[in-house]
Amino acid sequence: MRRLVVMMVCIGLHAGALAADDNRARGRAALDVINGGETEQRLAQLKQFAPEMFDWIVDFAYGDVVSRPALDLRSRELATVAALTALGNAAPQLRAHIDGALNAGCAPREIVEVILQMAVYAGFPASLNGLAVARELFAERGIGLKPAAR
Amino acid sequence: MRRLVVMMVCIGLHAGALAADDNRARGRAALDVINGGETEQRLAQLKQFAPEMFDWIVDFAYGDVVSRPALDLRSRELATVAALTALGNAAPQLRAHIDGALNAGCAPREIVEVILQMAVYAGFPASLNGLAVARELFAERGIGLKPAAR
Amino acid sequence: MRRLVVMMVCIGLHAGALAADDNRARGRAALDVINGGETEQRLAQLKQFAPEMFDWIVDFAYGDVVSRPALDLRSRELATVAALTALGNAAPQLRAHIDGALNAGCAPREIVEVILQMAVYAGFPASLNGLAVARELFAERGIGLKPAAR
Amino acid sequence: MRRLVVMMVCIGLHAGALAADDNRARGRAALDVINGGETEQRLAQLKQFAPEMFDWIVDFAYGDVVSRPALDLRSRELATVAALTALGNAAPQLRAHIDGALNAGCAPREIVEVILQMAVYAGFPASLNGLAVARELFAERGIGLKPAAR
Amino acid sequence: MRRLVVMMVCIGLHAGALAADDNRARGRAALDVINGGETEQRLAQLKQFAPEMFDWIVDFAYGDVVSRPALDLRSRELATVAALTALGNAAPQLRAHIDGALNAGCAPREIVEVILQMAVYAGFPASLNGLAVARELFAERGIGLKPAAR
Amino acid sequence: MRRLVVMMVCIGLHAGALAADDNRARGRAALDVINGGETEQRLAQLKQFAPEMFDWIVDFAYGDVVSRPALDLRSRELATVAALTALGNAAPQLRAHIDGALNAGCAPREIVEVILQMAVYAGFPASLNGLAVARELFAERGIGLKPAAR
Repeated sequence: MRRLVVMMVCIGLHAGALAADDNRARGRAALDVINGGETEQRLAQLKQFAPEMFDWIVDFAYGDVVSRPALDLRSRELATVAALTALGNAAPQLRAHIDGALNAGCAPREIVEVILQMAVYAGFPASLNGLAVARELFAERGIGLKPAAR
Repeated sequence: MRRLVVMMVCIGLHAGALAADDNRARGRAALDVINGGETEQRLAQLKQFAPEMFDWIVDFAYGDVVSRPALDLRSRELATVAALTALGNAAPQLRAHIDGALNAGCAPREIVEVILQMAVYAGFPASLNGLAVARELFAERGIGLKPAAR
Repeated sequence: MRRLVVMMVCIGLHAGALAADDNRARGRAALDVINGGETEQRLAQLKQFAPEMFDWIVDFAYGDVVSRPALDLRSRELATVAALTALGNAAPQLRAHIDGALNAGCAPREIVEVILQMAVYAGFPASLNGLAVARELFAERGIGLKPAAR
Repeated sequence: MRRLVVMMVCIGLHAGALAADDNRARGRAALDVINGGETEQRLAQLKQFAPEMFDWIVDFAYGDVVSRPALDLRSRELATVAALTALGNAAPQLRAHIDGALNAGCAPREIVEVILQMAVYAGFPASLNGLAVARELFAERGIGLKPAAR
Repeated sequence: MRRLVVMMVCIGLHAGALAADDNRARGRAALDVINGGETEQRLAQLKQFAPEMFDWIVDFAYGDVVSRPALDLRSRELATVAALTALGNAAPQLRAHIDGALNAGCAPREIVEVILQMAVYAGFPASLNGLAVARELFAERGIGLKPAAR
Repeated sequence: MRRLVVMMVCIGLHAGALAADDNRARGRAALDVINGGETEQRLAQLKQFAPEMFDWIVDFAYGDVVSRPALDLRSRELATVAALTALGNAAPQLRAHIDGALNAGCAPREIVEVILQMAVYAGFPASLNGLAVARELFAERGIGLKPAAR
């Protein structure tokens, strides 16, 4: 069911069905893919406390930046997972973007590979804490992680 | 000419021509792709000052981690560019991996998209400093950046 | 009641009633403003475990630095909220200084503006996590946040 | 002369002469205050390499965020100086915002107080490196720093 | 009992009883000292979720790096406590290495001195959060901290 | 010659020749060890621009913290080298403390071991940039680094 929503939104996002100047709609579509259609529920508290921030996320972060077609959403989500794992100070957002990467079509193994790789660029503690976030989320979503082929 | 080297190493890397237990060869192959075949020249000072670090980069960082087949080298380089831009404290390595991303086959526009996206996740200063590194490297390599389609 | 304590300490702090060479008294006065008069209670565990740290906070951090008259305490607390939001790795201290900014006379809206602004300089995740800390504290203190005029 | 430009822009910024929905004009006005009227010159290289980033800075960073009237530009610049000093990984932007704080009307002493205060919240090295940036900029602009009264 | 295990492993580690090429055994020995012999239990979840990370920790992090004889394990653990306190974004690992420093023979007072010192180099919040981790761990292990002589 | 100065100051520092309440003298002595007797020259610009910061470094950072006898200066300098390498945003201070570690009696190899170890805890880029600082300083001081025994 969630999968269906994602697919439908993806089609809209990539097929150019949205007018190029409709920033808010484009941002909302990208955000809905990442949030598995639950954008309103997940950001409800934020929207009530700081509605301008909610708007900036939709219009700027997703409307202006993340929805740009010059890089696909899967690569963008992997890049975000990499950055948030490396920074190591934003666990809630890392969780949301591991989820978002799955919703955008990344394989669980691909996400884990990016987190593992951060051991090289940001150190083992950052990678270990990222793995712990992924492990919990995968468990909640009932996702089994296949061993990496070598 | 450099292109050729890259292609040859890529073939070796992906075609399984290297024995699975040959960590050092696999790491060296990945490192040579990223460095455009100039690994020895680029790391000469390091190798002389701290030869163990040179070995760890080849055997662990590239042999154990970056060369794992479960994620392609292009995605890995984009993830590294994302992380180093976000951390903002490792300009020489960011430069090397923007170069590495190009050598691994990423389009200049894709690399710039990842750096631009870091404005959202790590702030505008981090993104601006990453763009400056890319601009300099692209100029040196004579790479023109095509405008992003919208 | 708390308000009264703050006012009294503020008067002492700004009227020069404290001798210029009394570092500890000056630091303690500034610290009491920020902690709403509850310095001892809040730092009790720290004082027992690491009494030297308690002294350094009073004598150096607040006596030497934060109480300097060349910048008012309100601006100092806003600057601290900015820095701790941007660093993103010190939630307990961010909470204490959002509280401290309120106690020093900043409007809730001013504090939130600083946290929102950090989205530009340190990225959206840092700002979002700062907003969450403010939202919780405001709720505990029964503070309603007025919408920003535009 | 520069002073005049700043004054004129400030009047526009605060007198509501700009239409509330004119995001770009409002952002440009705030940016021109901070840059002492030299926005185009300073961001010329960026504008050529990444024109979308230039637009985001004007429209989002300054149009949506920094120009919001609920906090004055002086306080915003001090908060930015605090954050960039604390992060310690964005020297060019720190320099631009020390300059911007001066252009927005902050006293040199106030700026230095914020940088000094970061020794408490981000450590002495971060503060020392911020002081070095301020010292250089003040020297270039011929600004003498008055000793802090105590 | 734990003490005994530590001693035995220490002897193995320093007496050269392990063959120089036995990376895994050397890494495991160092890791067992730090974990007080409970490596398997502590890393069980990690080993199941990401077995390659477990191997890298043993073979590279401890086999290649931490077990190198040119610096004693006590100094290495103090250096790690310093770094993790300063980074401030890896509380679980900081806790493990405060424990590891104790297991490697550091006095509780020495560990606390390093954490206190980070107030100078990384700011008071980083130091305070490190002290809180130490306080909790010392309480769990029933360790009383002697006041620092002066 | 420098060696002699260091020795003399060390004796003063450890033999308790300084009165326990003489914070400034104790801080200055520790600082002179680290700076090889060149404290005034090295901090001249700082002292002129921000004399309060100079005083805080002497009185608080070195007088209150770094000179505490409960941990020897060698271990303190190694901890500082670890922290500054890991943070990666304070190259001038890292250089000063690599120099300080040498002046406090650490072997070049011990310092390099700490920097190498940071590859594990803060990532390879942080470690590589730390090694580059050490390499330059060792070259200036004519220090040859012995290979690590294994």
